[in-house]
This record gives sequence, C-alpha cells and structure tokens, in this order.
Amino acid sequence: MSRGLVVGVLGGMGPAATWDFCREVLVATPAEVEQEHLRLLVDSDPGVPNRHAALRGEGASPAPHLGRMARGLVAAGAEVLCMPCNTAHVFASEVRDVEGAQFVDMIEATVAATRLAAPGVTRVGLLATTTTVTAGVYPQAFAVEGVEVVVPNEASQARVMELVFAIKGGDVGKAVRDGFRSLAAELVTDGAGAVVAGCTEVPLVLTAEDVSVPYVASTRALAEAVVRHALPQAV
Amino acid sequence: MSRGLVVGVLGGMGPAATWDFCREVLVATPAEVEQEHLRLLVDSDPGVPNRHAALRGEGASPAPHLGRMARGLVAAGAEVLCMPCNTAHVFASEVRDVEGAQFVDMIEATVAATRLAAPGVTRVGLLATTTTVTAGVYPQAFAVEGVEVVVPNEASQARVMELVFAIKGGDVGKAVRDGFRSLAAELVTDGAGAVVAGCTEVPLVLTAEDVSVPYVASTRALAEAVVRHALPQAV
Repeated sequence: MSRGLVVGVLGGMGPAATWDFCREVLVATPAEVEQEHLRLLVDSDPGVPNRHAALRGEGASPAPHLGRMARGLVAAGAEVLCMPCNTAHVFASEVRDVEGAQFVDMIEATVAATRLAAPGVTRVGLLATTTTVTAGVYPQAFAVEGVEVVVPNEASQARVMELVFAIKGGDVGKAVRDGFRSLAAELVTDGAGAVVAGCTEVPLVLTAEDVSVPYVASTRALAEAVVRHALPQAV
Repeated sequence: MSRGLVVGVLGGMGPAATWDFCREVLVATPAEVEQEHLRLLVDSDPGVPNRHAALRGEGASPAPHLGRMARGLVAAGAEVLCMPCNTAHVFASEVRDVEGAQFVDMIEATVAATRLAAPGVTRVGLLATTTTVTAGVYPQAFAVEGVEVVVPNEASQARVMELVFAIKGGDVGKAVRDGFRSLAAELVTDGAGAVVAGCTEVPLVLTAEDVSVPYVASTRALAEAVVRHALPQAV
C-alpha cells in the first residue's frame, strides 16, 4: 500500500514539463523511504489538440480530449487530479466535472503560493503563453486578492512564445535562459514586485536566482498543493 | 493523435528513477515539436511489495502486484510495457504474460547496449542490488554473449546497497557519487572492461565521466529500446 490519495496527472503538455512536475511532487513529499511516496498515475499525451489554435478559433477545442484523459485516470484509480500545464486550464471544464476525484487547480495554487512568497506585493509580473494571458485566468484569480497582473508588451510577449516553443523543442540552453531573465527584468522595471512563471516550460530554464524579486514557479506551486491534498496529515 | 505505440511504464521502484527514465525516453525520441513525442502511461506505485525481502523469503512476492499494474496499464491503452527497475525483473513473470502488449526487457536491452558500447569486452562489471546479483539475471544474459560478469566483493556489495538506499531516500550528493565511483573503479581493477549500472538508482548519481571504461546505464538502455519498439519507423 502506498500512502495518501492516488494522484492522476494529465500530462504531455509538454512532456518535459510533466516529468519536471512529477519530480517536484517527489521533492515536496515528506518521505524517509521509497514506500512513503505518493502513487502517481500519469497520462503523458502529447497528442492533446493545440490549445493556442483552439483559442484563436483555428482548431478543435482540447476540452473533450482532456475530459477523456481525466475519466481514464479516475477509472484507473486516481482520487486527485492535476494538470501541469497552465494553458490547458483554459479548457479544463470537463476535468473539473469528473466524478470521483478532486481537481487541484494550478492557477489557484500559484496565486496562493505567490501570496505566501510575496505577501505585501500588489503588482505581479506574469510569464505565460499568449493563450493563458489572453484568457485572463491569472488577472482574474489575482484580482480576488487585490493584486494587479503586469504582462510583457506585445513584442516581449511574442518573444515569450518563441522561447516557450524553443523549450518544447528541447532547447534549454543559455540563450533561452538569458531570454527569460531579460523578460523577467522587464516586468520588474514595469513595477512587478514578484514574478510568476505561469507556464510549466519556463521553470525548465528560469530559477529564483535569475529573478531579482520573489519568483513563483507554477510547477512547484501545483506540486506542493497536490501533496497537501493527497497527504493532508503529513504537511 | 500521438505518434507510435502507447508506452506503459511500471514505475515507483523508486519514483526518482521512474521520472529519470521518462526523461530519458523524451531525450531518446527524435522529435522537433511536442506533438512528435510518445504517449506514456505511467503507474508510479511505491507500494510494490519489497523485492529484496521477497527473494530472501521474508515477504510476499511482488509478482501478483506487478501483474495487476501491467494489466491496468494495458486496460488503459498501453501497447508496449516496460519496467525501469532491474530488481523487479526477477519477479516479472506476470508482466511478460499480459496479453495485448509487448514487454521490453531491461536486462536484455542493457546487455545489447553494452555489446554495442564495448564490442570486444569479455568481462563486464555490474553495479546492481544484491537481489539482482543473487538472482543471476545479468550473468545469465551476458553468458549467452560469451561475456563474464564481475561483481563487487561481499563488503563492497553491502556498500552498494547502502548507497542505493541513500539515493532512494533522496540523497544524490557528492559522498554517494564518490562511493559509486570507487565501487566502479574496484570492478575495473578486477578486470572489468565495461561497467553496467544494473540498478536505476545508480545513474541518478554516476555518469560516464565517473568511470574509466565504457559505462552503460540500464535506464538509458531501456529508454532507447522502448523508443525503437514504439517508433520502429523513426530510429
């Protein structure tokens, strides 16, 4: 028997971010021996329809595909569901509605982690895909907390997307990291008192050392929230 | 649609090794964009009964548990099965017999990778758990190729187990790495012309740079074999 609730992970968006997330769950779990870790069921499916095309009205919605993944994970035994891709949360309606498992929302987890990491801050910078930015999920969630979200200007947001797709293509080199360092610095210049990596590709290159203000990676924030849900007695 | 066959991974033995293996599959897959990666279904279950106690006759066999995991993965859609834990291969009978999916054997993949990496070598050093060593799976598989397997002496094998459990407990620091460097060097002194990391915890600390002869990590060997099975047209 493993401890706690069984965690179902809707993954593959992208796959490198999925394995980074799974490793973060491991790190966030208080465990002395292997047997004390959580059981994870992962469906890493890079075939989820393109989220960006869907929001532009140029492709099928990924919502039904994500719903099938969620129901498959619950049928296999998952009791808690999570999705380490911020953009996919725009299309998460069917995942939230699956019976038999609680969905741990990455946007909510990241907002809560940011409030803890930077309690007095009223302007937060967001590094996220254009789809996540356009859908407004972060500004809406932060507004409830009285926090304003600063996003890159149009040219810089285009650069974010270039770099995100470079990472998805396997490039996690210095140029990509330097690119995100500059983009984070621009947000700080624009008044951000904290920077949120609201895309799970970003923490594959950008760390707290690269940012001059508190930095919150959505991957880690979700991992820690999932451990709290799956092992409530331990943390 | 994702490319190739769906890969089912029996994981959690240990979980860090599982995510390392999944990342190795990603690296081994020829892909320009996210959508070209393989779909992986992973059951990372740290609750698999202890393999070492079972071989000593002190605990239940993990074979039925592994069989259930394999059948669950096939029911969820897996077409190729693999298990990134060498020790568990001693108890893989039910996994090999599951209908509807081909099992890619880690021991066979590692022996084949070693023959490629060190073609003329007739003595290979093995860093593996005492259970894997005692069960004799590597000597049997290498014997078919006319290759002899050298294992650490009793005291050094006990040290291997100490270090493996340190890694399973989360310690991947310098002392653990130095420990495995010394153990590998002992095998070379004993005539090994190549060293095999026949335990998936070992490559979490030991790399090719640490070993003076060709070094084959079973984790990477299995990942490459799985990609060849799942994407036969691409590699």
